[in-house]
Order: sequence, then C-alpha cells, then structure tokens
Amino acid sequence: MDSMTFVLFGATGDLAKRKIFPALYNLFINDKMPDAFSIIGLGRRVWSHYSFQTHVEQSVKTFSRRSINDTSKMEKFLDAFRYCSLDVTKNEDYKSLLEIIERREGQLHIPENRMFYLSVAPEFVDVITSNINESGLSPKKGWKRLIIEKPFGHDLNSALELNEKLSRAFEEEEIYRIDHYLGKPMIQNLKVLEFANPVLQALWNNQHIANVQITASETVGVEDRADYYDHAGAVRDMFQNHLLQLLMMIAMHLPNNINAEEIRNEKRKIMEFLRPLEKESVLTNVIRGQYSSGEIDGKAVVGYTEEPGIGDYSTNDTFIAARLWIDDRFWSGVPFYIRTGKRMKEKSTRIVIEFKNASEDMSQQNAIAPNLLIIQISPHECVSLQLNMKNSLTNQIEPITVNFSANSNDMPEAYELLLLDAFRGDSRFFAHWKEVELSWEWVQPVLEAFGENLLPLHPYRSGSLGPEASHHLLQEDGFIWWD
Amino acid sequence: MDSMTFVLFGATGDLAKRKIFPALYNLFINDKMPDAFSIIGLGRRVWSHYSFQTHVEQSVKTFSRRSINDTSKMEKFLDAFRYCSLDVTKNEDYKSLLEIIERREGQLHIPENRMFYLSVAPEFVDVITSNINESGLSPKKGWKRLIIEKPFGHDLNSALELNEKLSRAFEEEEIYRIDHYLGKPMIQNLKVLEFANPVLQALWNNQHIANVQITASETVGVEDRADYYDHAGAVRDMFQNHLLQLLMMIAMHLPNNINAEEIRNEKRKIMEFLRPLEKESVLTNVIRGQYSSGEIDGKAVVGYTEEPGIGDYSTNDTFIAARLWIDDRFWSGVPFYIRTGKRMKEKSTRIVIEFKNASEDMSQQNAIAPNLLIIQISPHECVSLQLNMKNSLTNQIEPITVNFSANSNDMPEAYELLLLDAFRGDSRFFAHWKEVELSWEWVQPVLEAFGENLLPLHPYRSGSLGPEASHHLLQEDGFIWWD
Repeated sequence: MDSMTFVLFGATGDLAKRKIFPALYNLFINDKMPDAFSIIGLGRRVWSHYSFQTHVEQSVKTFSRRSINDTSKMEKFLDAFRYCSLDVTKNEDYKSLLEIIERREGQLHIPENRMFYLSVAPEFVDVITSNINESGLSPKKGWKRLIIEKPFGHDLNSALELNEKLSRAFEEEEIYRIDHYLGKPMIQNLKVLEFANPVLQALWNNQHIANVQITASETVGVEDRADYYDHAGAVRDMFQNHLLQLLMMIAMHLPNNINAEEIRNEKRKIMEFLRPLEKESVLTNVIRGQYSSGEIDGKAVVGYTEEPGIGDYSTNDTFIAARLWIDDRFWSGVPFYIRTGKRMKEKSTRIVIEFKNASEDMSQQNAIAPNLLIIQISPHECVSLQLNMKNSLTNQIEPITVNFSANSNDMPEAYELLLLDAFRGDSRFFAHWKEVELSWEWVQPVLEAFGENLLPLHPYRSGSLGPEASHHLLQEDGFIWWD
Repeated sequence: MDSMTFVLFGATGDLAKRKIFPALYNLFINDKMPDAFSIIGLGRRVWSHYSFQTHVEQSVKTFSRRSINDTSKMEKFLDAFRYCSLDVTKNEDYKSLLEIIERREGQLHIPENRMFYLSVAPEFVDVITSNINESGLSPKKGWKRLIIEKPFGHDLNSALELNEKLSRAFEEEEIYRIDHYLGKPMIQNLKVLEFANPVLQALWNNQHIANVQITASETVGVEDRADYYDHAGAVRDMFQNHLLQLLMMIAMHLPNNINAEEIRNEKRKIMEFLRPLEKESVLTNVIRGQYSSGEIDGKAVVGYTEEPGIGDYSTNDTFIAARLWIDDRFWSGVPFYIRTGKRMKEKSTRIVIEFKNASEDMSQQNAIAPNLLIIQISPHECVSLQLNMKNSLTNQIEPITVNFSANSNDMPEAYELLLLDAFRGDSRFFAHWKEVELSWEWVQPVLEAFGENLLPLHPYRSGSLGPEASHHLLQEDGFIWWD
C-alpha cells in the first residue's frame, strides 16, 4: 500500500464522526493503513490541530466497533491528523491546504499520493473538484484519487452534468463512488458464494430459479431529513443506487477473474439487458407507496405527511416496489422483484432466490413449499437454505430452513472495507460511472411518472409489510413475497 | 386394513422379544392394527397361552420405545395372543395350529387372512413353508402372506434353491422379504428428499455428482455369533443384502408413482446396469479386511481370530470395501464406494454424495472443499449439506455443514413400519426376489474370490477406519472417504 495523504472535506460532519474516523482507526490497529500517511481534515470551522485530534479521538471512542485499549496506539493514530479551516469556494484556502499537504509530505518523506474524500453536500462537489484541479493540489509525481458519497445526481441529466464536471478534474479510474451497500461483506461475497459452491452454481440460472426478491426495509421514518427526503423519495434515496447495485451484484455472471474491470463489465451488462420501462409500463410494473400512521415496536407513530417538515399534500414515495426483467439468455423469464420502504415491519436487507418446482404435478398435489436460498445482508449476515423434509412422525413433507453462517459481532464495517480498497487502488466495489448512468437511465421514466402523478400513491400502515398493491404485483405472476 | 391372523414361527426367540412384540404393541396403541386380529405364537417349548402373554408383556415393557401407561390397553393387546407348541417337522402339529387359527377366526368372525412370519433359522424355512402348504393352512377364502428374515441363501445357488421351494407354497406377491434397513424412515424417504427438493433433484445426476459413498460401520465384533458369522463374513452379512439395497434406494431413478411395482422396477434396473465383476476384477475393485486387536471406546478388544469360536487361521472377512459402477446414462462415470466393517471407529450408517467442483481451476487454486450431501441413517437420522462460505474475518473460504433434520426420539422403528406395510399388503419396502437374485449374482465372483483366497486379507486395528487399502481404493480415483 502506498504512503499517502488523506484529505477529508467535511471533517467536522456527521459521516466523518460516525463512520470515517472509526473505520480509519480500525484499519490502523489492524495494520491495514500505509506505513506512512497523514490525514488532513477540512471544515468551515476554525479548529486547531489539537481540537481536531480530540474530536477524532472522541468519535472513535463513541463509534468504533472495538473498545480502545492501547493508548499509545491511539496517540500514534491521532498524530497523523491535521486540521485546516477551509471555505470551499475560496481559492486561497486551497493554497493553504496545499502548503500543509506538502509540509507533511516532506516531514514524512512520502510521495505526492493524495486521496480526496468528499463528505459534503452535493452542491459543493463541483466547486471543490474544480478548485482541487486549479490550485495545484493535483500531484506532479504520484497519484490522486477522489472518493465521493451519494447522491450522484438527482436524475439522469444532473448526474450527467455532475460527471462531466468531475471528469475535468479526475479520470474515471481516479474516482471512487461510495455505495456503502457494496462495502457489506455479504454483498462482496455473493459471487464467492456462487463460485465456491458448485451446487449453487449449477442452480444459478433461469432453468432453476423462479424469481429473485430483493428487499430493503427500514423501520425508521423520515427522521430529521425532511428537506432532502421529500424531494428524493425512496426511488432516489434507495432504489436507483443501493437496490440496483444489489440487483447487479446478485444477477451478474460469474467473471473469470474477480478484478475490478471484469466485475464492472459484468455489472454493466446486467444494466444493459435490463428491460427498459416506458412511462406507461411504469404503471403495471411499479408500485408507489407512502406510510400512514401506525405502530413500530409497539409505539404509535405518525403518518408521513404529519412528519415535521413535510407538507400535508406531499405525494412523495416512502415505498417503492418494482418488477424487473433481465433479458439475457441467462435470466430470461425470471422476474426480479425489488422493494424498499420506510416505516416497515422490520429492518432488513435481504435477497431471496426462489427455485422452481421440479415436478409441477407432484408439488401441486402435495402443496410442497418451494426451495429458497435466503441471503440476509442486514441486520445480521446470514445465508440460509429452505429444503423440504419428510417428517417421519407426521408423514408430512415440511419445509426446514437452516442457516449456513453464524452471526459474528466482530465483522469489519462497510467503510473499513471500502477505504482499504480505495487505499489499495482497488475499485471492485465502487460504482463505475457507467453503472450510475445506466441506473439513472432505467429509473428516469419512473421519476417522470412519479413526478406527473401518473400512478396511484398507495398508503400503507406504519409497521406493515407495505401496501397491498405490492403483494398483488407478485400475485399476478403466481408468487408471494417471502417475509 | 383387513382383519387377520398373525402366525409367528419362532415366537420364543430373540427377534420376537426384542423387535416384533414391541413393534406390534406400538402399532396397536397407535391404532394401526386391524380392527380384529389374533396373534398365534409358535415355538418348540410347551407354554400356556398365559405364559406366552406374560412373556409378550415382559418383552414390550423391556424393549418398547414407549413406556406402558395404559394397562387396560395392554390387556386388550395381550388378549389377542395365543400360543401353540409346534415341532416344525411334525405334520400333525400344523393340524393343531390350523384348529387354533380356525377357532380364533370363528370367535372373531374374521376371514381367513393369514400372515405367516418366519423368525427361524434358515434351515427351517423350507420345511415350514411345505407344511403350511400341505396342512391346509392356506386359506380357501382370504389371503395368505409370508414374511421371512434374512439370510436368503448363502450364495446364488442356495438362494435360487430356496426361492424355488418357497414358490411352491407362496406366490412372489405373497412373500415379504424383510430387510430391516428398508424399514428405516430415512431410507424410505430418500426419494421424497429428491422429489420434494427441486434443488437436489437438479443435482442428482452424473453431471453434478462426483461420487457416492455408502458406509455401514459397527463397533461391535463378532459377539456370540461366531458359528454363523465365520461362514458368512461381511460380504454376506451386510453387503449382499443391506448395502446393495441402500445402493438401489439411493441410485434408483425417481419413479412416476411411488408404488411397489414402480419402485421395484427402478431398483431392478439399477442392479441390471451394475457393472459385473469377474473374479479378476474383484482384485482391483474390492478390499477384504479382518480386524486385529485394538481399542473401542477406550477399552482393549481382541482381534477376530482370538474371538471365542473363531479358528486361529480364519480368513473370514469382517470388512469389505468395493467400487461399483452403474453403467446407465444417468450414473455413467460416477463411482459408488461401499464399505462395511465390524470393530470400526464408530457405529454409523450413512450415504455421502460428493458433488463435482464446478470450476476446476478456481477450486484448485483456492483448495475449496467439495459440496457434500450427507444422509445419516443411524444412529441418528439426519440430512446435512456442506457448503463453502467466505469467513469475512479471516477472508478464507471455509466449509460449513448444517443439519436439515432434527433428531427425534420418538421415531417409529423399522419393524413397525415394515409390519404395518405388510398388514396393508404394501410391498414397496420389501426385497423382491429379482433384487435378491441380482444381488447374489453380482456378489458371486466376490464370494468365489474370497473363497479361493485370491485377494489379500488386510488386517485393520480395532477402532480404526478400516484397512489402508480401503483408502487407497478411493485415492486411485482422486477421492477420499468422508468421515
């Protein structure tokens, strides 16, 4: 791993505190940081290096998955942190930043490898990258990399525009678009699960799979994010990015080599074969919902339009379910059902693969449950398989589900895995521009149909499994959601 | 279920005491006996009905899997039992038997349905069935059935002879040859496991299966059966009957209907496609072993030739391992490995299906364990599957085995299931003559090679996994026994 300088825009923000500092710390104590590195925090506030280091220490103590035992290690870790107050619009502030970076590079005798992490509101991305480009922050010798967080655009056009601006300052190979779902170990291991298990690999096609169900349900409501969420909705907040990424990861064909280029090629192919929707076909393939009042964990909660900051007549989607088809030879005929919602019955992200019944007659006669492969991504990682066994006592054929993976409390967090990959220059589990673009392209008619109110907004009770219409969507094909 | 008279030859013997009476009792309290029935026990000893009933009660109390709570039920059960002293060679004794049977039939107003159960030494089978035939015990109206225990012959010729004699008194459809392995619920459910699980059904062929391993290992030695066992050996005691039956059950193709005729057809086909051995090919495909001294459960045990009743120079086989090929389109290229032995490390009967690696290159690079389907028949019933999962902490791909069936303490015993089937006239899980004949035919060259001492007798330590040669047999094909 190359020595480097990690430049963090938004260092005083929430994501830095909760995720980035703890992830850096855990990498550090696992000896997964470069031999020499410095971390420059940037923010509008005026802080001393020392205040910043204290802030970092506090974040780690509060949010790290590990307890802090070794104070000398912590001191060494904090010693790498510097702070620089910066107004993202002021060119001269970038000059001061450059000075700090160069001084640290000199002190540490490390090359000009610079990683810029943008943990800032989307409207600042453009100005920051322009300034990086124009203030000589781009290294003469050494590499530069850019890590950015979602949202990556608000629709197809804004995404194209943003990308065009980014590309003036960074090459595509230099850009690491974080989708933290891609940092979850279970997602990263989906293809390993397939290739390491010939029995699963043999079944992983439209001959044997009846349908695939991807669910990401939350129990929380809009929380304090009304401003953002009421304009984004479930379709932008979850569907276009995380859920289409999950679709790509589960559906992509096994690459010959698990490297970034081949994985991204296979993912892109899935998006290219995804049957496009027209504004009209949105009506028959997409369900839009919005939570009404109800109960979560025994506590009464208000409906979406009663939430603080949400207008009484908001038609924003807090739930979306969709039926998708991948029209390649491999998946042809297998519907993919995707749904996500807030204020649902349980917090869970999972993929369920339902297998076809081998002998239709027998199964109808005996009402045998289908075989299921259930890949639970959160809150606990777990792979389980549902088979049918004859109960020798009752003489009935009964489904039995068993878990293949124990839940571990000491799993690396998504941000650890992703930062480590970025440090190594490994972009396997970052979203490529083509993936983002094709996702927006696919979603665009849905955005328009939603915007024009072309399809019903189904209310669903908080704490439920979503609107009835979402169940009808599967019933049309003879299926049910596996909950 | 038809009312009937159950006529038990060998009623004072060990099998009756340990298995048959408890099985009848358990069927009785489960309301799985005919509405009206009587049971006539036959033996050389002179017993009163009352002594016999006391003996039956004692047997049930000692050996039933259930405790006896309901004394009035027990009384009703015992009330069905009568005893008749009988010398199997004396024609007039059968006349007395007929009188008792007819008197009971008259008392109970039941038709002349008579089930003859021969729990006697093989040398008496011929004389008993002849006498049944000649003494008017065959009903004029009503059915007769014959249940016989193994051994069914000592080699091909003696089996043919025995069958010829039986067939003078009973039609093939009237003969129920008990192989108690076929009474084990897991064996009866093997095809259910396949047809009820499309994911297994899809894999159940030579495209996906690398090999099949059938193991029946015992920890006991020859015990007090030296007379019989030293002439039978593992090949006759276990291999020709139980293990070839397991082979047929696991390898037979899914019948369209799970009825006796179709199951037996499919089983026969397996035996017909079993590649025959010549005396010479026995050498390369069969391993013969005999236990030497060693340790079982921490206790020192003597070698086979030191056992009471065994001669110092006995070359009898207490272990046999064999490689078999089923040359049909379905199994072509898949070796079946079968082994059985006494004084082995553990008591276990199981079938392991090893699946092929899907991508040879990847698996060799990463040394990925094969996927296994493990069907444990005894001592506990269990189906488990071994898959590979990536351990997110160590980043290693590790095999994980999970069990699909819980162990139940309240399983019906083999004899219960088999007797119930026989009462119903259902011969699905009894050995058909054709199966027996083809088994002896296949085994005959092995018997001859053993008899002529054509292949080495490998000693193996008591408490071990059998002779080294048995492991070499699989190593030749690049496999290992899964223990």
